[in-house]
Amino acid sequence: MTETVALDEHPASSAGTPDGQAGGRGLQALFAPRGAVVVGASSEATKLGGVMAASLAGGKIPVALVNSRGGSGMHRTVRDAADASLVPLDLAVLCIPAQACAEALEECAAAGVRAALVCAGGFAEAGGDGVEHERRLLAAASATGVRLLGPNTSGFFVPGRDLRASFVPGVAQLEAGPVAIVAASGGLNHALAFALQRQDMGISLGVGIGAGIDVTATDVLEYLVDDEDTRAIALHIETVANGPALLAAVVAASDVKPVVALVVGQHDIGEFAQSHTGALATSWRTTRALLRQAGAVVVDDEDALVTAASTLAAARLAPTTDPGAALVTAQAGPGLLIVDGLHGAGVRVPELAPETQDQLGQLLPPLTFQANPVDTGRPGPGHGDVVAAVAADPGVDVVAVYGLTEPVVDLPRVVAEADLGASVAVVGLDGPADEVASGRLAALDLGVPVVVGARALTCAVAALVEDARLRADRRRTESADGVPTRMLKLSGRQWSEGQAKDILDRLGIATPARAVCSTLEEALATFERIGSPVAVKLSDATVLHKSEHGGVHLGVSDARELEAAVEALGDIGASEFLVEAMAPAGVDLVVGARRDPVFGPVVLLGVGGIATEVYADAAIASVPTTHDRLSRLPGQLAARELLDGFRGGPVVDPGGLAEVLHALGELLVSNPHLSEVEINPLRAHAGGLLALDAVLVSEAIGQQENVDEGGETP
Amino acid sequence: MTETVALDEHPASSAGTPDGQAGGRGLQALFAPRGAVVVGASSEATKLGGVMAASLAGGKIPVALVNSRGGSGMHRTVRDAADASLVPLDLAVLCIPAQACAEALEECAAAGVRAALVCAGGFAEAGGDGVEHERRLLAAASATGVRLLGPNTSGFFVPGRDLRASFVPGVAQLEAGPVAIVAASGGLNHALAFALQRQDMGISLGVGIGAGIDVTATDVLEYLVDDEDTRAIALHIETVANGPALLAAVVAASDVKPVVALVVGQHDIGEFAQSHTGALATSWRTTRALLRQAGAVVVDDEDALVTAASTLAAARLAPTTDPGAALVTAQAGPGLLIVDGLHGAGVRVPELAPETQDQLGQLLPPLTFQANPVDTGRPGPGHGDVVAAVAADPGVDVVAVYGLTEPVVDLPRVVAEADLGASVAVVGLDGPADEVASGRLAALDLGVPVVVGARALTCAVAALVEDARLRADRRRTESADGVPTRMLKLSGRQWSEGQAKDILDRLGIATPARAVCSTLEEALATFERIGSPVAVKLSDATVLHKSEHGGVHLGVSDARELEAAVEALGDIGASEFLVEAMAPAGVDLVVGARRDPVFGPVVLLGVGGIATEVYADAAIASVPTTHDRLSRLPGQLAARELLDGFRGGPVVDPGGLAEVLHALGELLVSNPHLSEVEINPLRAHAGGLLALDAVLVSEAIGQQENVDEGGETP
Repeated sequence: MTETVALDEHPASSAGTPDGQAGGRGLQALFAPRGAVVVGASSEATKLGGVMAASLAGGKIPVALVNSRGGSGMHRTVRDAADASLVPLDLAVLCIPAQACAEALEECAAAGVRAALVCAGGFAEAGGDGVEHERRLLAAASATGVRLLGPNTSGFFVPGRDLRASFVPGVAQLEAGPVAIVAASGGLNHALAFALQRQDMGISLGVGIGAGIDVTATDVLEYLVDDEDTRAIALHIETVANGPALLAAVVAASDVKPVVALVVGQHDIGEFAQSHTGALATSWRTTRALLRQAGAVVVDDEDALVTAASTLAAARLAPTTDPGAALVTAQAGPGLLIVDGLHGAGVRVPELAPETQDQLGQLLPPLTFQANPVDTGRPGPGHGDVVAAVAADPGVDVVAVYGLTEPVVDLPRVVAEADLGASVAVVGLDGPADEVASGRLAALDLGVPVVVGARALTCAVAALVEDARLRADRRRTESADGVPTRMLKLSGRQWSEGQAKDILDRLGIATPARAVCSTLEEALATFERIGSPVAVKLSDATVLHKSEHGGVHLGVSDARELEAAVEALGDIGASEFLVEAMAPAGVDLVVGARRDPVFGPVVLLGVGGIATEVYADAAIASVPTTHDRLSRLPGQLAARELLDGFRGGPVVDPGGLAEVLHALGELLVSNPHLSEVEINPLRAHAGGLLALDAVLVSEAIGQQENVDEGGETP
Repeated sequence: MTETVALDEHPASSAGTPDGQAGGRGLQALFAPRGAVVVGASSEATKLGGVMAASLAGGKIPVALVNSRGGSGMHRTVRDAADASLVPLDLAVLCIPAQACAEALEECAAAGVRAALVCAGGFAEAGGDGVEHERRLLAAASATGVRLLGPNTSGFFVPGRDLRASFVPGVAQLEAGPVAIVAASGGLNHALAFALQRQDMGISLGVGIGAGIDVTATDVLEYLVDDEDTRAIALHIETVANGPALLAAVVAASDVKPVVALVVGQHDIGEFAQSHTGALATSWRTTRALLRQAGAVVVDDEDALVTAASTLAAARLAPTTDPGAALVTAQAGPGLLIVDGLHGAGVRVPELAPETQDQLGQLLPPLTFQANPVDTGRPGPGHGDVVAAVAADPGVDVVAVYGLTEPVVDLPRVVAEADLGASVAVVGLDGPADEVASGRLAALDLGVPVVVGARALTCAVAALVEDARLRADRRRTESADGVPTRMLKLSGRQWSEGQAKDILDRLGIATPARAVCSTLEEALATFERIGSPVAVKLSDATVLHKSEHGGVHLGVSDARELEAAVEALGDIGASEFLVEAMAPAGVDLVVGARRDPVFGPVVLLGVGGIATEVYADAAIASVPTTHDRLSRLPGQLAARELLDGFRGGPVVDPGGLAEVLHALGELLVSNPHLSEVEINPLRAHAGGLLALDAVLVSEAIGQQENVDEGGETP
């Protein structure tokens, strides 16, 4: 039953659950059950079993109530309930103490239940006996094949099926609509659902994963791929257990419907996060970078999550490498904020073509700005023509239409009735509460994405553009060849700088002319051969930070200096040293590959010096991947201008950089015992790229054994 | 009538208008008129004169209508209208073409009008004849003393006086409340007002400045200082004409009520901005930095502007250097987002004291996280005790209370009834639209700040904390001595590196041992005196970028290298050169002072290398100011960790850095012809700070004349 998901980056990944059961497919019983049973039901509204019974009973599917002590309308066993039910009881909601859950689950399975929800805490996150309760519960789920949501969640809801398995008040007010929520936290699932409700946006499915011991976000994403009611997915991530499986699910989902992701944990919130989820938060930067690579629009806060998901549920651009956005605004002040925000979000706002401007010149009074943004003043009857003219501009893929609400001109209707060609338009309204609400409700029927406020409009356009870019990226990735081309197997466990550079040479990465020397005579001969000036460095596989140990002498330009350097290295106990040509001036980069504990092999690119560390300015990609994707990493750096002839410096070739990253990634993939390889600095100069220092780290490095000189086999 | 505003940083500034009339005081006639007259009134709802007449007629004050062609209910002249009116017509709203405005204003003044609103465009921003129309209008205002709002604005509103001089539909729905809006743009004034209205928050005054040829944001801020209906000010800035006057007004206003500011123009939107306001956008970073220095809470977007102003209108912390924030959350998932966001906003979230945690241990079940945040689970009857216990913690100044709406526990009421001691609490709600709305409305009566959503709660707490910090900063500034201590008058116009460093020596800023030499013999003698290694550099006052001209030789360590360096400098035409001791290793900073065209003298601090330029990581302050304020600039850098012993580097003394910045600022203030002084790099090493290069630029530098060797007088 295992579903195979196509994923170029992770060909070996499997999205299966521990028991080998399918991910998404098994969730039909959970999210579309024919009948449900509440175990531990109660008639008291203050108890979980009472709240759940009431919440489920408000829906359409038959709900049986079980309480071992019996009572009005209660069955004493699940078997009794199943026997009495006219429909199969696919879903069980367990409202009983943690220690009783495993046994109850088995009882449910025996009575035909195929999915269960456990809301309570008191499992592994609580420590003590809870660990054993969780182990037994998971074992019961595995043995019976019952899919289990929770524990430690406030549940889920499917308003379109009138199904609300949640103990949160107000959940009955949630209405059906196109946005699905997959949240790590039950509380955030509800907070997001209510935020959508406050914007008149309905929900197809809202799930809080909780502890996620069986059903994970990955499973729900797989389920949603084929869910026809879902047109966009809002994903909230706290921790990731199986990175490749999650990425595979995002790839599969975002191919057919937009996925918008919010990752918590930019700052150090580890202790509280651990108390909540029982696991340390995953690396925020890596998780975000790889979710983007997999096709998710990654946002910075939950307001943006709601806006982006709502917008993308209504419209999606065609895959486009770098979509152009235009703004038609009735008010200049908010227009300035929107354009400023679009620039900040990296959205291109091209000047409109001369023909478009000519056309606008005939539609608008002469005093307005018409180059993009188009500042119309208060919209008149011809506003639709203005929007259509801008949409028809060859450089425009998405048109943002902003205005204060007007009694005469209804912007959503104007946009709905305008001929937009292949472009997409999104409307931003400001105005009194009742007017924006009625504009928004009308827009739902018209199929036009409408948001409220200038900031939300900026966010909506940025999301449309990012989704289109990511899909274009993925199309190129899919059509390109991602098969490893070099398989360099390393037999060593520890490498000196010279050995590491020899390996780079074999990977086709340029390194400076050099020789390992052990005497002054050898050093002088090397100096004669490669010319002045040279660097003289400690060459010892066990010393990782040579500079800090006084092991590096740069700019050595004559025999006397060379002698002094060799002597100094002798003084700190070096028996061998590297004599190496100094590199031409240029820009220093940092490139590396490492094995992420959650996601597997990744490559990193940063700017040298303090930038990567202090400003956290690094681009990250999961490998293996395509040359095309790697060649776009430099463009993701905040300091990308440094690579583009900054202050008379070199223009760095993204293709050459991609080849270096590709080679490092392949080295890691081909050598499972290699945990990290880093070139720092990689000097970009007028003639190309040159690795000035290199470190390889194997898993066994801590043990300082099995040093194999020159240890590599082709 | 000129009002003097105390401002330590700008003792010479005056906030007066061109005609010497008072700023805020003269605006009573504009914002609190006894009667109004619409000039160019119309009975047609589609015309500006008709819309304005209708908008004003909906209010309480008598409104006279004037149309030169007469008509039903119309006077033919303003004089006629004034004669017929029972109250003085303080305010005139001119709904006539640009070319007619100047004359009409004079007519109005003659009839007793003291303030006017001109909404239309067609003045200087339109070019051509408009420039002359504007000149004449301003001349008429100056000559008559009539205060003029506009042109090119959609007007203003004072809901508490039922006064709405605006042509925007929906403006009648705006209600009275504590937030004032001072927006550069009429459109944004309305957008912000409606955003507040959608959150049930009322407005004391909303003004769009438009072209601002007479009444500026500065004037309105001065007016608001004493406006009892205003409890917080939302300020939107596009351009600033008179920087010191604006800052003085912010200082005066923020002393008595919070000012929250949004500055547009982070990115290049110059052309559109110019089309809107007729002026280039001011420097975004400098404007933001100096507004903060003056006491304004500076936010990043208009949602934050609305949230921060609403929150600060309801509550304000006591001035506190570094307030501690605590979170009491009913749901862990949103709690994680809030704490993550608070860290990102630089808000301290201290671990609660052991006694507080003991107390919470008795109030809460054992499984919840209680260190801060306090994760309560769904609130019970004792929730107020939890909030009170956290508020009483000695490290806590502000308590954020978050939860989904509950039928039993009303969070705003719980907070209102809890004993918070000296702490302030702000409530964040999520839930269905009707429930959060009723919670919010109830909170208005209770005086508790309530916002909707986790992100808004983060923003609200950050605003409360920032306001408290800025006030503490200002109190220290006010109590400290800001009088210049050194008055070094420079007589020169151009300075070589050696001369610049001599000036630094006199300012008490350390420089390396050095001598200016013109022969190899002199160089060798200097080398002997100051020891190896040395730097040898071109010394020419006319060459600003020595390195780019091959004019710098570093690490010269023997006579042969010295000879080679001197020869190379001779080859590029140097007749003089500097031989200078090389500096000890350390961290390179950039410090400088320059004359900002809008705000006057400012000092800047950045990290050397690419950081300041590429990452735009610089701290800016207006000078003269206090040692205390300057010593806090390093803490404002994103890369501040670099100054704190990063990777074994030096710990930079903020006091020493403040002295250098102070000296540079004073040099600029004392020498009006000096436009810029920069030390780049300023090397921070274990022994202190050392200026390795220095450049002074005078206004006359472009003319390359009047080079005065050693030109300085004490």
